[in-house]
Parts: sequence; structure tokens; C-alpha cells
Amino acid sequence: MAQDKKLVEEITSMDEDFTKWYTDVVKKAELMDYSSVKGCMIIRPNGYAIWENIQRQLDARFKEAGVENVYLPLFIPESLLQKEKDHVEGFAPEVAWVTQGGLETLPERLCVRPTSETLFCELYSKIVNSYRDLPKVYNQWCSVVRWEKTTRPFLRSSEFLWQEGHTVHATAEEAEQRTIQMLDIYASFCEEVLAIPMIKGKKTDKEKFAGAESTYTIEALMHDGKALQSGTSHNFGDGFAKAFDIQYTDKENKLQYVHQTSWGVSTRLIGALIMVHGDDSGLCLPPAVAPVQVTVIPVQQRKEGVLDAARGIYDSLKAAGIRASIDESDKSPGWKFSEAEMRGVSLRVEIGPRDMEAGKCVIVRRDTRAKEECLISDVAETCRRIMGEMQSDMLSRAKAHLQSHISDAHDYEEFKKTVEEKPGFIRAMWCGDEACELKIKEDTTATSRCMPFEQEKIDDKCVCCGKPAKKLVYWGKAY
Amino acid sequence: MAQDKKLVEEITSMDEDFTKWYTDVVKKAELMDYSSVKGCMIIRPNGYAIWENIQRQLDARFKEAGVENVYLPLFIPESLLQKEKDHVEGFAPEVAWVTQGGLETLPERLCVRPTSETLFCELYSKIVNSYRDLPKVYNQWCSVVRWEKTTRPFLRSSEFLWQEGHTVHATAEEAEQRTIQMLDIYASFCEEVLAIPMIKGKKTDKEKFAGAESTYTIEALMHDGKALQSGTSHNFGDGFAKAFDIQYTDKENKLQYVHQTSWGVSTRLIGALIMVHGDDSGLCLPPAVAPVQVTVIPVQQRKEGVLDAARGIYDSLKAAGIRASIDESDKSPGWKFSEAEMRGVSLRVEIGPRDMEAGKCVIVRRDTRAKEECLISDVAETCRRIMGEMQSDMLSRAKAHLQSHISDAHDYEEFKKTVEEKPGFIRAMWCGDEACELKIKEDTTATSRCMPFEQEKIDDKCVCCGKPAKKLVYWGKAY
Repeated sequence: MAQDKKLVEEITSMDEDFTKWYTDVVKKAELMDYSSVKGCMIIRPNGYAIWENIQRQLDARFKEAGVENVYLPLFIPESLLQKEKDHVEGFAPEVAWVTQGGLETLPERLCVRPTSETLFCELYSKIVNSYRDLPKVYNQWCSVVRWEKTTRPFLRSSEFLWQEGHTVHATAEEAEQRTIQMLDIYASFCEEVLAIPMIKGKKTDKEKFAGAESTYTIEALMHDGKALQSGTSHNFGDGFAKAFDIQYTDKENKLQYVHQTSWGVSTRLIGALIMVHGDDSGLCLPPAVAPVQVTVIPVQQRKEGVLDAARGIYDSLKAAGIRASIDESDKSPGWKFSEAEMRGVSLRVEIGPRDMEAGKCVIVRRDTRAKEECLISDVAETCRRIMGEMQSDMLSRAKAHLQSHISDAHDYEEFKKTVEEKPGFIRAMWCGDEACELKIKEDTTATSRCMPFEQEKIDDKCVCCGKPAKKLVYWGKAY
Repeated sequence: MAQDKKLVEEITSMDEDFTKWYTDVVKKAELMDYSSVKGCMIIRPNGYAIWENIQRQLDARFKEAGVENVYLPLFIPESLLQKEKDHVEGFAPEVAWVTQGGLETLPERLCVRPTSETLFCELYSKIVNSYRDLPKVYNQWCSVVRWEKTTRPFLRSSEFLWQEGHTVHATAEEAEQRTIQMLDIYASFCEEVLAIPMIKGKKTDKEKFAGAESTYTIEALMHDGKALQSGTSHNFGDGFAKAFDIQYTDKENKLQYVHQTSWGVSTRLIGALIMVHGDDSGLCLPPAVAPVQVTVIPVQQRKEGVLDAARGIYDSLKAAGIRASIDESDKSPGWKFSEAEMRGVSLRVEIGPRDMEAGKCVIVRRDTRAKEECLISDVAETCRRIMGEMQSDMLSRAKAHLQSHISDAHDYEEFKKTVEEKPGFIRAMWCGDEACELKIKEDTTATSRCMPFEQEKIDDKCVCCGKPAKKLVYWGKAY
């Protein structure tokens, strides 16, 4: 049994050092690896398969909402990036520049896209002429580059995978509607598929996207009580339209500027999955997003009939459309159990000689370790039922964790004490002044996460300066 | 009716100017657009949807063949690119270089990946240790950059989308097997899904990939008689393994070098679809890959009941899992027909007041324009049958076109005359000497496309120099 434990012993415990635990899981579950390119990561098959599941299901929701996919160039000429002032100020310091193509020095530097607003604007200025051409609701799945100094797997890297939606509309109302619609799609996807509850709200001006009129966000709470901004949706108003001259003739034949939005989620969501659901045995994935939903592990597999029975179970799972695997390697059962747990496989089916004779097998849930005996003939159906229960239980637990990690603060002493002593979100009133945001950040390292859609007045005065309060804000330390 | 014809009149006829026809189709079918980044294209929704259909179906075939998807960095440090001599010589002249990250000048230039052999080698050298770790069969879907001087939509651009598979194996035999297996998957995918027959064969040394031991290719014939290299599969032997020190301990505990392969297809396949199946009305897509398989067009849609009947048909097509659309715009029916034809929609269903009263509609095939009346209640089933017939007819026609454009040449005069007068492939014997390939290219612009797997001895002597012949070669002008 010494070997059986080796895999898990190499993981740091979450409570001992959460940061190290996270890196251990990423490495041991073979999700990601470092490359020789500073700040750039390799997403290995176990990690990429999660991304494919996210991508497929989110893309289906996009398409139901009328989104069309496109692909725009990787490069942005410097002059194009500079067209919108706030935008270039936000991004120029962190982009990678191509200066040579083939054997020639380029007449103009090209940046590797950090985001593609400028390219979409250029396209829209060409293809949008009349109100008949509106709206355009485009999206692309691609990688972007932001030259980061400090990086962490899935959370912050110089290159990462994401989707970026960019839309143009005839009216401000329609743009605002689309901004919220996409945020809602993100939030319900995260709840229903990733089993991660989200706080939805609006960013303060200080925290909004470079060039946006308003930025909306979904914020999740990690196991350690830190917040993770998990997706954003921006309303640009007509700012970019004016900078890029995107106009259309309306029904009265008058020229009007379009109104625009953009919205994105990234491989950060994989980081959220790890930090919301993982435990000291490794990754734990909700069945809806798990690359392997059920793994079949034969016990005493050299005993006659065991392997055949295991294969029969595997075949019936596959036939039922369940993402299944079977571990026929010569490792010990204990080792196989640990390995499947490390990789976050939702359920394992154990089958040994005695089970086999009784026509039964044992199903073990990854999240609770609850065991259930079941007839071999019912295995697919039973797994499907248990996966449904597991999916819903995981969301409930994550919701309970979130709820129990939200504290209210009414004055600055209470605020500082809470940041210090109680990990999680802090709800507190704010006067609307950026100075208070800056002070809170300097004093506590907590930042304003969002002004939640569900506003409440829990006090009259700003938690920081004591002046009249305007908004309820969720504050927290964030990744 | 003047308006109805406008859309098609703007297309150059194929026979008049094939190159211009191609560009017109790309533009009018809204597949692609130029960007302000030299040589980089924008793939618009109609074009990208074709790529998604290719990607989804090819990826499913990959997964059945044990392929796992990953994602590797966009950048390659110059020193890494230089590790394999032939490889760097092949690619260095055409790569884009990143020299600045954020506000700093980088200590080492990074090239934007033109292909990722070197990055995969670096990864494999880290994760492959024992024979138990083999094989690894990885693939990634991404974009690559090659700094091209002259570009053409989908056929040659500075950035393009593709997939690149990279595998490592214990033995030379297994690597060779995988090289051929993936070529076969490409060829059967192209036949069964894209309705494009392929000539399979091996590239001559002159035409093989930089760093490969052998390169296999699938070559298609376009409508104008020119060849298009549509996919390649390379066996690297242990050359890269030695350059990157990728070794494993075998069952006898001895160190061995791995054997490697790589293989790829790209958005070029969309170019092939256009040039094999298109006609003077625009794009014509086989149903298996068409973004819209059936479009419903109401005729006299303001007459009572027509629009409802059209919507009913649309709903029943959707319910049957057919990729359907409905054109309710206020354009004339003729205009809608032209537009659907331009975009390559496989079938259109016409429904007018008289059809409606008879409980019928008319189905029109895009490829033959054959019309068939059918009961509204049978529309989904009938469309499915016709799509099956169309898919198979399109392949048959493409096969017939290919067969009728293969000529044999026995001496150099015949060869030159055939290149001049008869577009298509020329089969001719070759001595194996690169000098003859160069001479043929200089004299005729035709190049060796491949040495087909099905070798025949159609003559004793080389078609160029007259020395004893070694191989039958397919020659042709190529894109």
C-alpha cells in the first residue's frame, strides 16, 4: 500500500498552504506545464479536455442567443491600437510587439492582440452601412497575449485562451440589453455546468475596462475566501464608434453612431473549478464538465472474469453516452483510486471477484466518497442518477460556502478587522469616491469587486470616509 | 427582376477568369475579408461556420483514433527553433519576430509559431521517460504565422488556422503506421465529408517538410485543373529526438530515442471546397459540411398563411436535426434564391400560396437545380434523402472530373505539350534525380505533386532525362 499513497502524499494540504496546494494539483492532475517561454503555459490533455467541455457547452448557449463565430487576425497595427485613447493607455504597457517579418524590419510595429476591440471596430466600420446590417453579434475563440510579470497557472499568464464577443447595435438600449444578456449567460453557465455560484454586479469606474462606459462582472468565491473575477461584459456606448467612425443610416436616412459591447471568459474558469471544488485528494469536477465522468476500476483483475465484467460495464457506460474510461493498467487498485481522484473523475465503479459473482458493482462519488452498491445491469442508469445528484450537491455546497463567507461591515474598524480575520466577501456601503477605494486597497489589500445588481442599503454612510453612502459594494481580496 | 440578378452579375464567370471568379465568390459569399494587417484575413461567419463543421467532424475522427488535444504557446524562443538544423533553415526566413514585451526589449527574440515541432519536442523531452509513457498522440487547433509575400484567401495567408498533430512512438514501425493512419483519416474525411477525392502519395525529397524523413500528402484537383496540396503527414524518424534528446528506457531498461510524426490540415480545405464544387452562381457546399443545409424561402409571403406554412417547414427541419434557415426578409424571392445559391446552401425549399393549398412545397438542389415536389408533412425526410443523394453525386462528379484530368506522358515533348494543352495531373516516370524535377519546373512550372501509393510502371525511362525510371510521379501546376 506504500505505493498507493505516493501520489497524494506529494500534494500539500489546502489548509497548510493553499497556493502550494493549487500548484500541486495543477501539476499532479497533469492539467498544465510550464514551457521555456516565460509566462506561457502548456495546457496538457487533462486540462484541455476541461476547456473543450466548457467551450462546447458555452458556445451552444451563445448560438442559441444569436451569436456567430468569426476569426480576426492575431496582429494589430500600432496605429489601429492607438485610435481609442483610454483603450491604448490600458493595454499598450502590456503587449508584445512584432517588429520583424521574415528577413525585413516592419515599417510599423504590430502588437499581438491583447484583446480585439480595435480589429472588430475596423471590420464593423466596413461592413455596417444601414440599419438593415444591425445588429452584428460576433464572437471568436482564440488566444490573447498580455505581457505579465508574475504568472500563475490558469489565473494569470502571458498568453491565455478565451472567447471574446463583440457586438454592434442601433441603440444604446439594445447594447445595454446585450451586455446584461451575456453576463446572465455566463452566470447561468457557471452555476449549471461548473456548479459555481456567482455574484453579479457592476464594476466601479476605477475597475472598469479600458475604453468602456460600464463593465459588468461575475465574481466567484474560492475555497480560501479570495474572490476570482470570472467573466466580464462591457458596454462601450458609442465611444469606439466615434473613434473608429462606425455609422449607419437609420430608417429616416440619417447617419447614426452604433453602440457596442464586448464580453469574455477565459481558461481562468478552470482555475475557478480547481479552487472551488478541489480538496486534499486533488481535483474534483462536476460531472457536466468532467472529461472523464466515470472510470471503471477492476479489483483483483487477474481473477477470471473480472476484467471481462469491468469491460462490460465500461461498454454499457459508453453506450449510454457517458464519458467513461477503464483502468486496466498493472497498478494496484489503491493507486488507481488515488489517480482517478487526483484527476477529478466524478465517479468510479469498482468491480472485484465477489461483486461480480453477485452481479453487482460499487459506485463511489468523488466529492463525498459515498459508496453505493448497484446491479451491473443498472450501472449506466445508476451512474447517471448519481451524477445528477452530485452536480446539484456540488452547487449547493458551493452556494453554502459563498453565503457563509459574506460579512457585512458598517464602519472602517469592523471592515479592517473582517478583512483580517474572516476570509470572504465583505458587503459595505460606499460614497462613490475613488479615493476611498484606493485607501481601502492600501490599508487592507481588499478591492471593490462589484456593486451587486441586488442593491440594499445596509447603512447610510460610506464605510471608509463616513460621507453619505451611494452604493452597496462587495469588497474582497482577489486573484 | 433587375434586382434579382444583381448579386450574380457581379461574379466573374469561371471560364473567363478563374482567379477572379474565386476572389469574387470569397467576397460575395461573405466568407472572408481583408484586414489592415498585411497578409492577414478576417474569416467571416459564413466562412468560419464551414471551418467549425470541418473541425468538429475531423476532431471526432481524431478522437476515435486516440488523439488527445492540447495547447502549446504561441511563441518559440529563437534558440529552441534553432535546435534542428533543417527545420530552422526551412522556417526562419518566413517567421514573424517578437522583440519587445511590454516596455522592455526581450533578451531573446521569440518567433510567432510557424508550426510547433520544436515546442512539442521540448514538452516530450520532459514528459517521456519510460516505454510506459509511449505513445503520445497529441494535437492542437490553433493559428500559425508564415510571413508570405503574396497571399490569396484561404490558400496562402500570413496567418492561417489549422490543426497540427505531433506524436512520439517507441519504434520506427509504429511511427510510420501513425503517419499513414492520419493521412488515411484525412483522405477519407475529404471524400466522405467534403466530397473531394484525393490522390495519396509520398513527396519527393525536394518537396518534403523541413526536418522530415518522409512526407506524405493528399492532393486534390481543382476545377481549373490545378492541384492543391490539401494535407500532409510527416514521419520524422528519430532526427528531432536526437536534436532534442527525447529518450525513453525500454523494457530491457536501455535508453532509446523516440520516433516522431506530425500532420496537419488547414483552412486551405475551404479553398478546395470552393474550387472543386463552386460554379458561376457561387459557392456549392456538400450537405455534410454546409453551415446551412436547407433554407426555406416563402414566395408571395404576404399572402395569408404562406409565412406560417414556411415557418412550419422550418420548424420541422430543425426538429429533425437539419441545419436550416428561413428567409423572411422583404427581398424578392429571386434575390433570395440567388443569395442562397451564392452562399452554397445545399437545398432550398420554396413554398407559395398554391403549394400551400395543395399541402406541398418544392425542393431545389443547389448542385443540379433539380426540383422535386413533396408533401409538407414529408419535407424533413425528403430533404434528408435528397441531401444524401447530393452528397454522393457531388463526390461522383468530382471523381469523374479528377479521372478525366489525369493524362499519361511518356516523353518530354508529350509532357510539355500536355502541361500546355490539358489542365490536370500528368502521370510520368521519374529517375529519382532532383535535377529533373528542377528542369521540369523551370520549363513548364509543373511540380512533382507526389509518388502515388499505387505505383505502376507506365514506362522504363524518366520522362525528363531518359535514364532508367524509378518511380511513377503525379505532376501538375499547383496552388
